[in-house]
Formats: sequence, structure tokens, C-alpha cells
Amino acid sequence: MTPVLATAEIIAVGSELLGWTRVDTNSLFIAERLASLGIQLRGKSVVGDDAARMRMFFDAAFSRSDLVVLTGGLGPTADDLTREVVAEALGLPLIEDETITAGIRERFARRAMRMPELNRRQAMVPRTATVLPNPHGTAPGLFISDPAATGKCVVLLPGPPRELQPMFDALCQGGALDERAGAERLHTVSIFTTQRSESHVDEAAQPVYRPWLVEQPPIETTILATPGQIELHLTMRSADAAAASRRLDSARAQLIAALGDAVFSTDGRSLPAVVGDLLRQRSLTVASAESCTGGLFLERLTDLPGSSDFVAGGVVAYSNALKTDLLGVRAELIAAHGAVSEPVAAAMADGIRARTQAQVNVAITGIAGPGGGTGAKPVGTVVIAVLLEGHPLAIRTYLFPGGRQQVRLQASQTALDVIRRLLR
Amino acid sequence: MTPVLATAEIIAVGSELLGWTRVDTNSLFIAERLASLGIQLRGKSVVGDDAARMRMFFDAAFSRSDLVVLTGGLGPTADDLTREVVAEALGLPLIEDETITAGIRERFARRAMRMPELNRRQAMVPRTATVLPNPHGTAPGLFISDPAATGKCVVLLPGPPRELQPMFDALCQGGALDERAGAERLHTVSIFTTQRSESHVDEAAQPVYRPWLVEQPPIETTILATPGQIELHLTMRSADAAAASRRLDSARAQLIAALGDAVFSTDGRSLPAVVGDLLRQRSLTVASAESCTGGLFLERLTDLPGSSDFVAGGVVAYSNALKTDLLGVRAELIAAHGAVSEPVAAAMADGIRARTQAQVNVAITGIAGPGGGTGAKPVGTVVIAVLLEGHPLAIRTYLFPGGRQQVRLQASQTALDVIRRLLR
Repeated sequence: MTPVLATAEIIAVGSELLGWTRVDTNSLFIAERLASLGIQLRGKSVVGDDAARMRMFFDAAFSRSDLVVLTGGLGPTADDLTREVVAEALGLPLIEDETITAGIRERFARRAMRMPELNRRQAMVPRTATVLPNPHGTAPGLFISDPAATGKCVVLLPGPPRELQPMFDALCQGGALDERAGAERLHTVSIFTTQRSESHVDEAAQPVYRPWLVEQPPIETTILATPGQIELHLTMRSADAAAASRRLDSARAQLIAALGDAVFSTDGRSLPAVVGDLLRQRSLTVASAESCTGGLFLERLTDLPGSSDFVAGGVVAYSNALKTDLLGVRAELIAAHGAVSEPVAAAMADGIRARTQAQVNVAITGIAGPGGGTGAKPVGTVVIAVLLEGHPLAIRTYLFPGGRQQVRLQASQTALDVIRRLLR
Repeated sequence: MTPVLATAEIIAVGSELLGWTRVDTNSLFIAERLASLGIQLRGKSVVGDDAARMRMFFDAAFSRSDLVVLTGGLGPTADDLTREVVAEALGLPLIEDETITAGIRERFARRAMRMPELNRRQAMVPRTATVLPNPHGTAPGLFISDPAATGKCVVLLPGPPRELQPMFDALCQGGALDERAGAERLHTVSIFTTQRSESHVDEAAQPVYRPWLVEQPPIETTILATPGQIELHLTMRSADAAAASRRLDSARAQLIAALGDAVFSTDGRSLPAVVGDLLRQRSLTVASAESCTGGLFLERLTDLPGSSDFVAGGVVAYSNALKTDLLGVRAELIAAHGAVSEPVAAAMADGIRARTQAQVNVAITGIAGPGGGTGAKPVGTVVIAVLLEGHPLAIRTYLFPGGRQQVRLQASQTALDVIRRLLR
């Protein structure tokens, strides 16, 4: 019986990935797929287009792990060396695969071009390797079992994500990696929360998830803080997919009960997407009067395809004059309370409602910094008002931590969350 | 004489970096600093919090390269193992540095807390190592010369960027790495362009930069395409900083002459920052009437600190009704030409001007997709109008490629660039 693939490493090949402008993101995609197969990623590396260095990195990775996945370096030019380096390391001769050559030639012909002789290199296949077809480019991928019969494997993938991803998916779903991975797979569910700090979420969640760690098999919980949201990821290794799904569903339900209405999504949707869906379901439209967020609130909603179904529009009233001219906020009100105040926010919400006839009207006014803060109203002070037809005005003054971008992001995130809570 | 550090590798330590949500970005910062010292980055790796694996990765990197920079794993908890692994690999005993312990204790005392005994681990220093002070956290960094007197070095840095960056900067500017690097340093200048494709920029630039490659020392030119802008980075290795600076300045001037007004920045400023500075210099304010961009144009300008100096505000008129109600665009005009048309864009620009009295008025209306396209006006069709006081209306219909986000980004980028060209 072939031994099971338990551990893996990824090597991204390409000198451009050693500069200071580009990160390798293919490895995130590959890491997720490997995890779902129950294969542990033990390390990942980036190496330049240099045969001697690549060989050192490959040999080290192949000695440490059962599976090595290499990305990039499969192009037709002289600095594309992945095929040659791996074939030599494994002691396999490279043989031209005429079917591949014909396929590449046809690809060029379809665009009325002759295949450059260089592209022949992409048809070179290490003996015994399985060719992975590439419908989106000229470089096929390769799957190789260690000729030394150790049970170890090597996968070579092209660098462009739209070529790599379908190819790797095929390997993981019914393909060679699916067959070689163990019966135990990793199952995952997620919970997204907002308006609570990481430590608050953890405090509420720990009593729930801690006992799961000592169950058999255990459920592991990891907390991930991203700007404006805290995510809980629950994972469990099991050979029984249906049983795992039942246990994870029940675990998720317990966490949702503990976290209450801080939970906005259990299916990976972002907060704007959740709010957009709520608005669409209820046939409501939203309008906004923004000051310190400068259009960010509406920009995040209109980033969603089909947002014209539920976005009416809005006003960015950055100056006090525009708060008066465009939103009808009385100048005396601003003079008496300041532009960042609950009376002004309420008047902004009412002003945008009167002008747009939207059912949900949002006003955001605050001090994003770095300048403009005072003792009474420091940088981070933001007033958010939400006026939902048939409801009393929801209004509150917040103090958000962080710099200009964080304050603006949290202000827009909070406004979205107030709408979500009102519409639930 | 100590041998010069010529090659380096980076190892990021942390199991969280092997998942599918987080990339190591510290290595980009480190890569740039190493390049400026003329030290070649030959590879980078990520490894989890596992002592045996870390040791394998460290040994491999230290055998291949002159300098190994490790980030992360310097915290106080049991899974922070970088110090121990490196000390053992180099055969150096760990000794508690009482000065560090006192510093950490004081840090806790300032917040009226007792130092947990665990934190003592952060004061353990391999014998002969130089301690790198950390004003932003409890974990000091470490600089270690190979005790085997090979001239190789190891640097240990804490993971959080705000702790790592100033520490590494100090090492590179007058610190130990500055002293150990060769006399030849890498000098860099950049040029940012917009509104041209990568291949157009390269076509115009190649005749200029190609001869530089065979000069002594050569100037290397790399082209980087990022959303909405194409960047040219010119680099040159030289021991004579003043001479390099003169040659690079002259090279840059030649490229600017070849690329013409597509160049918007030679000092790293983004397009919104360049436009903001132009507006501020001329004491002008800008207002916008946005449809398909949904506030993105104004959001990018108000993201700049101090943008209240030059942003009046704007209207997001997503629905046709709001184009009429908020901007005074006649309903018959929309009925006759469609919302995405030059007459409507012109009316939107005029409408926002009348309401804000800004000197620069922008209107953007288009079809961002994925829905809404027609044969005559496919997805990507965007009309941009810019009305600058004392000038005729600048108006044009564009067809931007790509999906919703790319269309919106290019529309906002183009509107900014039209303003830049008008104000130059």
C-alpha cells in the first residue's frame, strides 16, 4: 500500500517574488486545499530563478516533507527552470511529450500565430510524471511520484492563479492528491463578528470552545482579527464527513448563542454583503450623508454587484457650508454644537432622508485625524445616526482607536452594523 | 578583515503564517532594506512554531547564505522558540540579561502591572549576541556573529511591524548590518505613470533604458503594473552615492522626456496625493457627482490627511431620480440620452458646481457591471466630465476593461488624472 501523504511544503519560484513589491499569494490557496485534505503544511519558501539555489531549496524540502508543491518557473524562457531542476533532483530524464507540443501549437494557431520553438520546452516531461492539463495557458502542470518509491510526491504548477487554481483543485478533488491523502480530512466552519474586540470575543467564546479541545476528535478554534471584524474558525479532523459536519454545525450554534448579535455572518459573507442582502430582501433603499468617511460607507456598499437594487445614493458634505447647502443642516445648529455632534448628525440624517426618500438614512460625522482633535472631541470621535422608516432615530457617539484609516473604516463598519441590527 | 555580507535569507516564524489567511509582509520591508545595502536576498521561508522544523530551516538557510534574518517567535510564551533554536544551532548558551529584565519589569510597572514570570524568557540572550533595544514592545531583537568566525551573521527580530521596522532600520543605517555590508550599495529612483498600458510604457521606455544595461555600472529598469498605474524602478549598484545619484537623476529625466505627461509622480506619491497637492497649492476645492464609482473618487481623496483643505464634498447619485433631485439633471435629458451619456455627465458636473461652488467639479457616470451592459454601452463604458473654472468642459467616454472593481478603480483614477493634467 502506498504511504499516506501527511506533510507538505510549498516552494514558489521566481526572482520577482524576492523583491519588495510582491508577495506569493498562491500558497494561501494551496494551503487551504492541503488543509482540507488533512495534509499538514510544514513550511513554505520563495526562491529566485537560479538553478543551483532552487536545487538546494528543493532537496531540503523533499527531505523534510512527504509532498513538495512548486509554483512558477514553467514558462518557455531560459529562466524558467523548475522542470529541469526537479527532474534532475529526482534522477528522471526529460522527454518531449508530442501531445503537449501539438496542444501548444494549436493554441498559437487559434490566434493565427506560429508556435515559437522556445515553447517546446514546455512539452518536456520527466519520465513517469503525470501531465496536468492547463486549459488556461501553455504550461501544463506535472505530478510526480518519487521514483525511489518512498511514497513521496512532487507537484509542479504554473504561477498565474487562473491557471494554477483549477489545476490544483482537480488534483485535490478526485485527483492524485485526493487519492494519496489520508482518510482523515479537515472540516471547517467560520463565524464573523464585529463591534467587539478580539479579547472580548475570546472571553465570551473560550468557555464554549475550550471543552472541545479534549473531545475525540477535538475541534480547534482559532481567532483572527482583521480590520473591523473578528473571525472564529473551527476546524476538526475526521474521516467521517457527515458526522464532522453535524458536530461542527452544533459547535457553531453554541458559539453563536454565546456571542449573540455580534455575529453577522456564518457563511463567509462580508458585512456590506450581509447588509446589502437584508436591504434587498426587505425591498429597502439606503442613502447616506457622510462627512469624515468621505464616501467610504457608500463606496463599500456600491462595491457589491447589483447594489443599484438597494442604494439610492448620498451626499458627502465635507465642509460645513455643504452640510447646510446640500443637507439643509441649519448653520446655527453647527455653530451651537459643532459639526461633530449628535444634533448635527440627526439633522444630516433627516436632510438626506428628505432629499432621497430612502427608507434607511445614515449620517456619519467625526474627526478622522490626524488633525482636528480637541480635548472634548479627540481624534476618533465619530457620531453615527441611522434613521429607519417607522423607527426612532438610532444615534450614538463613538470613540474609535487608531489612525485616520482605522477610524474611517470602523466608522463605516459601525454604520453598516447598526443597519444590520435594526433590520434583523 | 571581516568578510562582507553578500547574500541573505529571511525566515518568518509562526504557525499562523502557514494558514490561508495571512501572508508574511515583514519580508518585503526587510528585502527593500537589504537591497539598499547591496545584500542579495536569495530566498525566504515560513516555518511554524516547531523547534525541530525551525532548526532544519535555520540550518539550511545558514549553510546557504551569509546572513539569516528571522522574524517572530520572540514572545514570552512556550511556543516562542526562535531564541532557543538559534542559540542551540550556533552552540551559544542563553544567559539572562538583567538590564532587559529590568526594562520589561518597568514597562509593566508603567501600566501598574507586575511582570509575569514568563516574560523573563525574553531577557535570555545568547552569549556574545548584541541586544537590539525595542522601544515599542517587550521583546528585544538580537544580532549575532557566527561564533565559528565564518563572518556569517544572524538577526532575530520581533514579528509586529511597528517593533521590527525601527529596529531593522537602525541596524541598516549606521548599525551592524551597515558596517558589515559591502561598499557597493543599491541606489533607486522611480517613475509612476497612469493612463497607459504596461506594454505602451515599455515600448516608449525601452529605447531609452536599454543602452543603460551595458554601461558600467549598468542601470537596471524594472516595470511593475499595479491597478491603475505602471511603475518604472531604476536601480544601480555603486560605491559612490553622489555619482550614482547624478546618473540616476539624469536617467530619470530622459525617461520622463520619453514618457511625457503620462508621468505623474517621481517621488513615490500616489495619484490622489499628487492631485491633492496641486489643489492645495492653487487654493482650489474639488467636488464630485458620482454614479458608478459610488463615492470611490471622493473616498480616495479624503483618505489623505488634511484633505478638508481641498475637498468640498459631493453627491453620489446612484439612481436616476437622485440625479434629478440632488443634481438638477433634467429627467428628459436622462430619458433622451440615457444616464450614461455625455449630456448627462455634463449636466451632473454643472449641477454639483451650482450646489457646491467648488472650482473643480467632477462627474462620473458609467456601467461598472457585471449587469447593465448593452450592445451600444457595454460594461466598462464610463463618461467622465471635469469642469474647471475658467476652462471649457473636459469630457470623454471611456471603455475600461476588467470586472466591476477594475472599472470603478480606473474610472476614479482617470478622473484624478484629468484633473492633474488640467492643473499642471
